Amino acid sequence: MNKPETTVVDRSIALHRQNRGKIGISLKVPLETSEDLSLAYTPGVGGVCMAIHNDPAELGNLTCAGNSVAVVTDGSAVLGLGDIGPAAAMPVMEGKCALFKALAGVDAWPICLDAREPDAVVAAIRAIAPGFAGINIEDISAPRCFEIEDRLQDLGIPVMHDDQHGTAIVLLAGLLNAVKATGKDFSTLRIVISGAGAAGRAIVRILRCIGLDDDACTMVGEVVVCDSKGALHRGRKDLGMVKEAILEYSNPSDKAGSLKEILAGADVFIGVSRGGLLNADDIRTMAPNPIVFALANPTPEIMPEEAHAGGASVVATGRSDFPNQVNNVLAFPGIFRGAIDAKAPRITDKMKLATAYAIAACIPDPTPQMILPSALSQEVALAVGKAVKDAVE
Amino acid sequence: MNKPETTVVDRSIALHRQNRGKIGISLKVPLETSEDLSLAYTPGVGGVCMAIHNDPAELGNLTCAGNSVAVVTDGSAVLGLGDIGPAAAMPVMEGKCALFKALAGVDAWPICLDAREPDAVVAAIRAIAPGFAGINIEDISAPRCFEIEDRLQDLGIPVMHDDQHGTAIVLLAGLLNAVKATGKDFSTLRIVISGAGAAGRAIVRILRCIGLDDDACTMVGEVVVCDSKGALHRGRKDLGMVKEAILEYSNPSDKAGSLKEILAGADVFIGVSRGGLLNADDIRTMAPNPIVFALANPTPEIMPEEAHAGGASVVATGRSDFPNQVNNVLAFPGIFRGAIDAKAPRITDKMKLATAYAIAACIPDPTPQMILPSALSQEVALAVGKAVKDAVE
Repeated sequence: MNKPETTVVDRSIALHRQNRGKIGISLKVPLETSEDLSLAYTPGVGGVCMAIHNDPAELGNLTCAGNSVAVVTDGSAVLGLGDIGPAAAMPVMEGKCALFKALAGVDAWPICLDAREPDAVVAAIRAIAPGFAGINIEDISAPRCFEIEDRLQDLGIPVMHDDQHGTAIVLLAGLLNAVKATGKDFSTLRIVISGAGAAGRAIVRILRCIGLDDDACTMVGEVVVCDSKGALHRGRKDLGMVKEAILEYSNPSDKAGSLKEILAGADVFIGVSRGGLLNADDIRTMAPNPIVFALANPTPEIMPEEAHAGGASVVATGRSDFPNQVNNVLAFPGIFRGAIDAKAPRITDKMKLATAYAIAACIPDPTPQMILPSALSQEVALAVGKAVKDAVE
Repeated sequence: MNKPETTVVDRSIALHRQNRGKIGISLKVPLETSEDLSLAYTPGVGGVCMAIHNDPAELGNLTCAGNSVAVVTDGSAVLGLGDIGPAAAMPVMEGKCALFKALAGVDAWPICLDAREPDAVVAAIRAIAPGFAGINIEDISAPRCFEIEDRLQDLGIPVMHDDQHGTAIVLLAGLLNAVKATGKDFSTLRIVISGAGAAGRAIVRILRCIGLDDDACTMVGEVVVCDSKGALHRGRKDLGMVKEAILEYSNPSDKAGSLKEILAGADVFIGVSRGGLLNADDIRTMAPNPIVFALANPTPEIMPEEAHAGGASVVATGRSDFPNQVNNVLAFPGIFRGAIDAKAPRITDKMKLATAYAIAACIPDPTPQMILPSALSQEVALAVGKAVKDAVE
């Protein structure tokens, strides 16, 4: 903001160059005297090794491994930039590590893998796992990300692909508050999702979990997912494995039609697809007080002003320059904080749902202009960490 | 020292438990405002990614990768503890990372591999390499360590197995000063090495390099290596690949005999084998003013007081509680500092030799009681870093 003539990219590159990145190592013990050396290193350290060898549970108590998360990518689907490879993905991974530390006190280190086949990625993550308390998978392209995440659930430490679940969780938090702010009812809510990729799949999956944390066992009225050819339904023969999986949990009455046709009468639009798909007239066809999550980045499926012009009551995007930003920074630091504090072996649906409710609860009285807290909130990470820890069984 | 009734192991475990290890992550940029977030993370970070994608040399300028070293083990040969596995090896790796930071400002992170076959270890190290400027291999058992290190020399970043080269380099630094302090002459020096493993092999290899940095092309008079059966010579049929390799560079006149027989008349004893092999009478059979490096840990091949009783002029051990400690902490921080500052693709013999000379030069006037500087010296790391950088071709 100091130099308004420069772009955010110019300022970002300058910041990165000046500091040679964003994170480094800090020492938690002194290393000045020979006594220091004999305690932190040889000969004393040999006894620490044997304490862990004799009781593996001591690893997290006696080393940094108990507070460490690896932020792992292969660079195949970085932001909206696509397959730029592991080295060029480093700034994003390092940024996540910085956020882990700043918001939740988690010591995270970036691991950018020169590996591509799921077998190789899985093998590399299994290989490095002993020194970490959790694995945050990031920016790996679909459908490989599903297989890689699924195959690592037996690792004994939490493994989560943030692009899927982080987005879905924060979306749900926003939806919980948007429903509250508009006086709608989940049990009759009609939701249309545009985008049948990794994020769409994760959103469908978390939406069917809503009732799990609720005595009334609330279920969402209806969810229909569209790809570029329209609604996914059981009459379509062109669906691959991922879209078939999405269909398992959506469109029970097999509605067919284009996105715009399906959108008519819906309460909620969730876009995780591409910019500029909709206009104000499309919003006008929706049910009263429509809720719009236009999450494509950097250009949303519909710009907030146009959505409001079409009558949208609540509009959220993925961007920081509009109200109601859906940013997975709200979720991942606290999720891993809670999961590793609880020594959870994996991150369950219940823990994801608890995260969404905890984020939503940070806005006690949501309004259409304020359904989500600010991304850089340590209070949110703290609340999420506690909720996740409590949700570990 | 505050609690003399406790052991060093007790104090070390207490220190580790209190701090949950020794290292953590520090932030190099602020993360408080939305502008901070837009520069360190999205959307600005996308431009940093593309800057690296367009010019891979920018990786080290724009991310922490340019100052990062992975300290990698499989836990198969940890200190003198043996094969205790990757998790129990963590305290040693974390200790090395702390020393990298404290002595040379290198940001090092421990990577403890659940992998054992050389193919798997090599694959894991290749996979994680994009995010690091160097790889310090540590505590991997022989002969796997040789193959693993050799196969990774084409990685484009320095890869060094410290147990071999670190020990050999610091030993050579000590030997340079011991020869100076005793007025001996390298060209007629007779050296006997006890121990034909990884350290023995590395010592033999660095000893034959001595002349490389010297106009006079000094060569060591004679080096004979012994294992538990005596001298390695070309008449023996029981030598494996490693000992055959050692023999290539040693015992040119094919001397045969036990360690004690070979030691008679020698100027230098170098023990990298096991405690209690020699006594004062053995030292008495050596040439005048003998030099003794008894590096077995924690019990040296001969205790310093006994070696001196036998007439040893210079005695060095691996222990911090005696004078003249041969500690590879003197070498590795500065070697990697210099190598990554110079963007060297590998660590050459010339760089190792430059390290030994730089360490030796830190003691301008060596005496039998002072052939090596203190292990925790930032000045040594600085001098080594400069010498290594200058030695990069």
